[in-house]
Amino acid sequence: MESLQQLFLIKKQEPPGFCNLGTRVKGKKMANSKFEYVKQFEQPDQLLPNTWIVVRIDGRGFTKFSTKYAFEKPNDKRALDLMNAAARAVVTELPDITIAYGISDEYSFVFHKTSKLFERRASKLVTTIVSTFTAYYVHLWSKYFVDTPLSPPLPSFDGRAVCYPSVQNLRDYMSWRQVDCHINNLYNTTFWALIQLGGIDATEAEKSLKGTYAADKNEILFSKFNINYNNEPEIYKKGSVVFRDYELVEPGTHDVVQEIEHTAEPAQQSKTQTEKDKRKWAKARVLVEHLDIIKDDFWDRRPWLLSNKPGKIPKEP
Amino acid sequence: MESLQQLFLIKKQEPPGFCNLGTRVKGKKMANSKFEYVKQFEQPDQLLPNTWIVVRIDGRGFTKFSTKYAFEKPNDKRALDLMNAAARAVVTELPDITIAYGISDEYSFVFHKTSKLFERRASKLVTTIVSTFTAYYVHLWSKYFVDTPLSPPLPSFDGRAVCYPSVQNLRDYMSWRQVDCHINNLYNTTFWALIQLGGIDATEAEKSLKGTYAADKNEILFSKFNINYNNEPEIYKKGSVVFRDYELVEPGTHDVVQEIEHTAEPAQQSKTQTEKDKRKWAKARVLVEHLDIIKDDFWDRRPWLLSNKPGKIPKEP
Amino acid sequence: MESLQQLFLIKKQEPPGFCNLGTRVKGKKMANSKFEYVKQFEQPDQLLPNTWIVVRIDGRGFTKFSTKYAFEKPNDKRALDLMNAAARAVVTELPDITIAYGISDEYSFVFHKTSKLFERRASKLVTTIVSTFTAYYVHLWSKYFVDTPLSPPLPSFDGRAVCYPSVQNLRDYMSWRQVDCHINNLYNTTFWALIQLGGIDATEAEKSLKGTYAADKNEILFSKFNINYNNEPEIYKKGSVVFRDYELVEPGTHDVVQEIEHTAEPAQQSKTQTEKDKRKWAKARVLVEHLDIIKDDFWDRRPWLLSNKPGKIPKEP
Amino acid sequence: MESLQQLFLIKKQEPPGFCNLGTRVKGKKMANSKFEYVKQFEQPDQLLPNTWIVVRIDGRGFTKFSTKYAFEKPNDKRALDLMNAAARAVVTELPDITIAYGISDEYSFVFHKTSKLFERRASKLVTTIVSTFTAYYVHLWSKYFVDTPLSPPLPSFDGRAVCYPSVQNLRDYMSWRQVDCHINNLYNTTFWALIQLGGIDATEAEKSLKGTYAADKNEILFSKFNINYNNEPEIYKKGSVVFRDYELVEPGTHDVVQEIEHTAEPAQQSKTQTEKDKRKWAKARVLVEHLDIIKDDFWDRRPWLLSNKPGKIPKEP
Repeated sequence: MESLQQLFLIKKQEPPGFCNLGTRVKGKKMANSKFEYVKQFEQPDQLLPNTWIVVRIDGRGFTKFSTKYAFEKPNDKRALDLMNAAARAVVTELPDITIAYGISDEYSFVFHKTSKLFERRASKLVTTIVSTFTAYYVHLWSKYFVDTPLSPPLPSFDGRAVCYPSVQNLRDYMSWRQVDCHINNLYNTTFWALIQLGGIDATEAEKSLKGTYAADKNEILFSKFNINYNNEPEIYKKGSVVFRDYELVEPGTHDVVQEIEHTAEPAQQSKTQTEKDKRKWAKARVLVEHLDIIKDDFWDRRPWLLSNKPGKIPKEP
Repeated sequence: MESLQQLFLIKKQEPPGFCNLGTRVKGKKMANSKFEYVKQFEQPDQLLPNTWIVVRIDGRGFTKFSTKYAFEKPNDKRALDLMNAAARAVVTELPDITIAYGISDEYSFVFHKTSKLFERRASKLVTTIVSTFTAYYVHLWSKYFVDTPLSPPLPSFDGRAVCYPSVQNLRDYMSWRQVDCHINNLYNTTFWALIQLGGIDATEAEKSLKGTYAADKNEILFSKFNINYNNEPEIYKKGSVVFRDYELVEPGTHDVVQEIEHTAEPAQQSKTQTEKDKRKWAKARVLVEHLDIIKDDFWDRRPWLLSNKPGKIPKEP
Repeated sequence: MESLQQLFLIKKQEPPGFCNLGTRVKGKKMANSKFEYVKQFEQPDQLLPNTWIVVRIDGRGFTKFSTKYAFEKPNDKRALDLMNAAARAVVTELPDITIAYGISDEYSFVFHKTSKLFERRASKLVTTIVSTFTAYYVHLWSKYFVDTPLSPPLPSFDGRAVCYPSVQNLRDYMSWRQVDCHINNLYNTTFWALIQLGGIDATEAEKSLKGTYAADKNEILFSKFNINYNNEPEIYKKGSVVFRDYELVEPGTHDVVQEIEHTAEPAQQSKTQTEKDKRKWAKARVLVEHLDIIKDDFWDRRPWLLSNKPGKIPKEP
Repeated sequence: MESLQQLFLIKKQEPPGFCNLGTRVKGKKMANSKFEYVKQFEQPDQLLPNTWIVVRIDGRGFTKFSTKYAFEKPNDKRALDLMNAAARAVVTELPDITIAYGISDEYSFVFHKTSKLFERRASKLVTTIVSTFTAYYVHLWSKYFVDTPLSPPLPSFDGRAVCYPSVQNLRDYMSWRQVDCHINNLYNTTFWALIQLGGIDATEAEKSLKGTYAADKNEILFSKFNINYNNEPEIYKKGSVVFRDYELVEPGTHDVVQEIEHTAEPAQQSKTQTEKDKRKWAKARVLVEHLDIIKDDFWDRRPWLLSNKPGKIPKEP
């Protein structure tokens, strides 16, 4: 095996380029050495064209993490606000994301089915989102947890990409997450009321909830603790939706779904149009709201979420 | 389409569990709703057993990033130290990583071929590394860039996993990266000497290096600027290797490679042994060094890197 | 390494089962030996749900093969009839195939997007079609090439599966193949007319067609050889479509596409309904026709092709 | 949507080429039509370099098939001979296959780890083998089942490809299949002896074998039916191995395994050497034998199976 000194003497032209922080020569094409064959082992991972790409990320070991930082139960407003701030930053940096939805320590980011970002390479898409999200989560931590500095082990997230062929599949995915939010929050609200207000321990609380239905939990909350679940904050009951802000349209005035289902890859848009759209996307404010995304109404009034065509920028109030 | 309120009334038993930060009911198995079919669209991504998994991460847009924070050229010691600190944290948190190697804004992490971490799921492995690395990079930034606070857009990294079937392939991968380090650093050192010491501009510098060989660049450095490239700091010339510290062995006393190539999946180790090994791995210090990893010597003296069997903890000096 | 005789003495219960032709014990679950770990290396290959699966097969080395058996140029009716007979057998044996389309030595088979055949495993779907097709091709050869017995190397086919998310993508795929058929047949018809009727050789024929448009070829055929391309047999101009025969419907009476695009996986059909449908599918005759499949009309009049709901069995004439 | 007639008038140059049997213009590069975008949906399926590729094929529905053609129990010599003849043809036509092993209605074909056939595309490799095997199976049927003509549904095979990184994994795979052969054949031999010689029915036979070990079955065969299992034909006890015939070497004179494990992709062989090797492979007779492939001896004496370097052609006897 040759040493670095021997390789140093390889008689070949070196390509131009210059460093960024250390010692990178960018954009080279030629083989630098006999070792370069190892690049052949990289396997392509492009996602199927003309499908909605959902990247869902999850906090790693957040049960332990939430104990370490004494998160409030059943919901810690600071923790959710921090998640939303990080998600908002991700959506702002990546205009190909049409909508995002978060509950607890998870967030789902949706790329429009016509997106060609990073040639639709799965690992590039997933790692970019996970990394950007983590960067903002750590960076913004001190803003939301003012007197609680982070210490190792630091919070981190894993993620994966899933493709959904039809609008119906995508809507069902979003509904799945929001139903999960609802079921979990109702359970947790009741569970922690039993402990914090009812004075029983976790084991007893779990036992008394075993086999109960939604209606039973509502009843427990109301009769035992005088809590009307409907009056709980929307952010806990509905989770958080992140999207760009345009003027709402009247439901029934668009048939976006049919149109978008007939859009076959590749979207043949002129470059000028794309540039125009980009500016429009960039102009829109990125909102974090707590709405019902299961019903048609949410989608009917915001056709740009599925059509990928920017709407009208709302007038300043 | 039903509303959240209707779904609220679904008559079904809800599973036990409790929240972490928001509203998660963990470990449930039952279908929460008719939407749960969307989980079927998740596609498995387990990596081939009995292969070395290399996860390489790269800074996103670091040319721009290094300009924004005025990185020194050709190498910024603080930036490299920060990369190494983040990598060290990753290796420390994930004992399945046997070795890591970094140059510039990239880092490669190697999982031993017998690793079963996360059932070898590609996205889980890659996102965990990318996220942990990013978290430490952002968290430790202020330690290395004392007077330069981070501001959006924040630094982020992408990554991908590649499998290498044989020790030879893995060694060649590592050599490929180190040769790249060498070629880039020699080029950049000369390029920036021409600019910073020679007083010419980037275009002229590029032109005068076009078509030159390694020996030519050494000659330019020495004759024009009295720089002996061999005396440049090892961290720039060799990059950084991260690994656990055990007592070195005499080369020739082991034949790890042959042994490890004959190890067929799955490693049939007793649980007790595994626990013992875990404690030994945890005890070892994680080092960052700047060594030649192309020659056999590095590997021969550190059999634990390939064998996945912890060595002897070195005595305190 | 143990010998077969030693393994023979493995003290373990063997599972029940009985042979098919040689020595298979079916349906066993237990590990037969320490070697069984090798099954873990099999990687799943399920295709994305709710997408149209197209399996396209191609003759291997059919240029040489067609020379060996002296196929007529530009089209050999016997060869095409044999392809169609084999495709018809494939469609008949696999009711999940909704339509097939063939030109030259290639055939595309379309599985309905709701198909769950073989759990949508790519290799199982592709190999089943390739193998069944090959079996009939070889078996029926002597019926179409009466005096020309097959001899090694035998004809064989390769194949691959591709997923199409939307009806539009699927229709575009089918159109792509039929446009190819058209372009190739017009070229070949002109090319061989120049040779067979015009008396020039292949090189000259190729040269005189270089750079010509469709209209030019029509003109050559008509002015030089008095051939009206429109009067050429439909099987050559349009290729062959294979599908089940039900009563045609009036165009405009159905909106199958919209309905099918809204069908989200999994189709929730009762078992009874499925059984009923199966009988209806089985009853239908499988046709081979030569029609325009690019225009809407073909699909509008045969809603069962996209809806996967059997139509009315036509009355005997 | 345009009709075929409209597309007919597309103003573009058509590429040269000529038909094989129908209407194919080969080797074209240009887009024929706006539909050609559908090619983007094809996803690459190259198998990891430097791994052994095993393609295993299985008879589809062969329990039913063996009943239809009244296969003898527990083993039908004609059926096995036909399988072996088809496998021999496959190995002969594809020199990249180094060894094949068959039992019952299944066959495993092994491509050498350095093989680059079809760029290692999984579907191309699997379908080529399945199709070639099926073609010979159907074609040769009448030679082995002289008075029993095939009728629809015809026999067919499915298949899949699996990668094995190390020689040990590959050897373990082969051993797994041969142990399976052994266990199944011992069970079936005893099962059918109980029925055919013992006069009991299948249910009783199954019951009396439930929970028995290998030694018990040997005992039943010997004590009840005076059958010494060791004297059963090798083809039933060991299955069939197909490989090229060269002069055996003395065990211990080679260390092929170590050498081959150190072979990193890509094999850097001169073209002349490759051509020479090809001729040598072509010259070798393809054998079908019934040997123990679990013990080292088989592999030690036939180094070409793992080294991919042709041996010495044996002298004519």
